[in-house]
Amino acid sequence: MFGPEIAIGPGKADLLDAIAATGSISESARRLGMSYRRAWLLVDTMNRCFREPLVSSATGGSGGGGAHVTDFGNRVLRHFRAMEKRIDRAIEPDLAAFSELLADRPAR
Amino acid sequence: MFGPEIAIGPGKADLLDAIAATGSISESARRLGMSYRRAWLLVDTMNRCFREPLVSSATGGSGGGGAHVTDFGNRVLRHFRAMEKRIDRAIEPDLAAFSELLADRPAR
Repeated sequence: MFGPEIAIGPGKADLLDAIAATGSISESARRLGMSYRRAWLLVDTMNRCFREPLVSSATGGSGGGGAHVTDFGNRVLRHFRAMEKRIDRAIEPDLAAFSELLADRPAR
Repeated sequence: MFGPEIAIGPGKADLLDAIAATGSISESARRLGMSYRRAWLLVDTMNRCFREPLVSSATGGSGGGGAHVTDFGNRVLRHFRAMEKRIDRAIEPDLAAFSELLADRPAR
């Protein structure tokens, strides 16, 4: 959290991964099934919340410009993914215990 | 997760705490700033997702009936709160590191 805003979370991390893979915000939006506007707003939020931009985008040009994840963005992304793994490991026994408490799935 | 549904999460856990404290779904909804309908739906989801009801409610009567958290519900709630604490402890160093990477808060 950065004030009322969410600086980074699973959706924004996936968007960073997609931008790193595609070099394009619009193509990333398509892959993740979100609007270009939404992807752009998520990038804007990340860039404003952190000390340095996570995504750098070039506007204009015949291809509409490209976008790339900065070194700083890669650092944040790696850190976030490592934190997700630590959470998964920390609660693995809890999740197993919870699934014992869940109802049986209805047959289809 | 129970299929596509969220069996328990921070909001549902807070609702269980409120029902335990107030003995009433409608009073709990008021305290948490949600509609009665939403609180009822959250209770219904929990009760359907788990093997046993977490909340038992009595309908009718002049007071409109009451609700209480079952022993099973208390067990799920304690387990959930313990899991939250484990997560907090597991990522405490990450959160400290992340806050170093966040921008300075704008002065008000």
